[in-house]
Amino acid sequence: MQRGTLYVISAPSGAGKTSLVKALLDRQPTLSVAVSHTTRAPREGEQEGVNYFFVSKEKFAEMLEQNAFLEYATVFNNYYGTASFWVEESLNKGQDLILEIDWQGAQQVRKLIPDAKLIFILPPSRDILKQRLVQRGQDTDEVINHRMSQAINEISHYVEFDYLIVNDDFEKALGDLESIISSQRLNCLKQREKLQDLLKDLLS
Amino acid sequence: MQRGTLYVISAPSGAGKTSLVKALLDRQPTLSVAVSHTTRAPREGEQEGVNYFFVSKEKFAEMLEQNAFLEYATVFNNYYGTASFWVEESLNKGQDLILEIDWQGAQQVRKLIPDAKLIFILPPSRDILKQRLVQRGQDTDEVINHRMSQAINEISHYVEFDYLIVNDDFEKALGDLESIISSQRLNCLKQREKLQDLLKDLLS
Repeated sequence: MQRGTLYVISAPSGAGKTSLVKALLDRQPTLSVAVSHTTRAPREGEQEGVNYFFVSKEKFAEMLEQNAFLEYATVFNNYYGTASFWVEESLNKGQDLILEIDWQGAQQVRKLIPDAKLIFILPPSRDILKQRLVQRGQDTDEVINHRMSQAINEISHYVEFDYLIVNDDFEKALGDLESIISSQRLNCLKQREKLQDLLKDLLS
Repeated sequence: MQRGTLYVISAPSGAGKTSLVKALLDRQPTLSVAVSHTTRAPREGEQEGVNYFFVSKEKFAEMLEQNAFLEYATVFNNYYGTASFWVEESLNKGQDLILEIDWQGAQQVRKLIPDAKLIFILPPSRDILKQRLVQRGQDTDEVINHRMSQAINEISHYVEFDYLIVNDDFEKALGDLESIISSQRLNCLKQREKLQDLLKDLLS
């Protein structure tokens, strides 16, 4: 079985990453988001192993000690982490995965999964980035300036990625994402497996 | 200036390579076919350096002796060759190039220009391949069988290529070709140069 590809997608807040990934998953049904482990309680309708792997804080701490996570984060007193063994297993089954994380997580993934493809999404201008950060709510200038400097700090790491996409025109940016994934799938070794019947027919 | 990419496109006769490349060039105006040197006389309307570089047989022989060609071929007593220095110069100017050659030429290019991307186009089935080879004219079985075995010999080298595309649905195959080229252009280093104004704006 040809190994799947892990696509790490990073962007500053305001670049439109979440909407792009959502649209990408709609268009590419064989692509899926990496399932995280979390210590928060399941919400109604959430399924174990589909939305999250739900674990206790003790279990999560134990996994942390064992370096089981590619990357992890704390949100509102709960832990979220992507387990390396789960990612490796999924890739080895031929599954293509998406992981939305920040530049630090991306660097960590680069070290642990060297064949991952790192994609960075840029906003189309500083003005538009600021507008998008302001539109998020009624915030003080201080809060907005803090968000802006965080976004710019994130952007300053763009060069550590394999691909750079500008989210100016949404459809264009989505097409760019799709072309990266499509071209990976046209790789001779991946195709060789998918096209084995055709190749047998042609070369018989 | 970021270096352009050389795309080598190979296929057996009957795979529909020529139509695909023509459609690709129509859709991607910044892509162009590598200009060959030839010893045949210019036809009406043909321009030096656009359609071909027209050279004498003596000059061509001299270039051959100097190993000036990436690959060359003889057709009806005339020589055609792709000059390495011309390809290198064009790539170094940032130009993306297409070269349509057979598997032997592709292997030669792989050695001389290791960053070239090699694409192989397959017909959708043995039956369709045969139909397409028959439709080319009123030929004897012997001629058709000879063409078929040549095609199959060419196909047997598919594994030496980077990408494999099946020309079943023409638009799908064309989209596949485009996705390979688009994703190359989204490479961080290429984008860094193209997006230098945006990056300056964002990071100022």
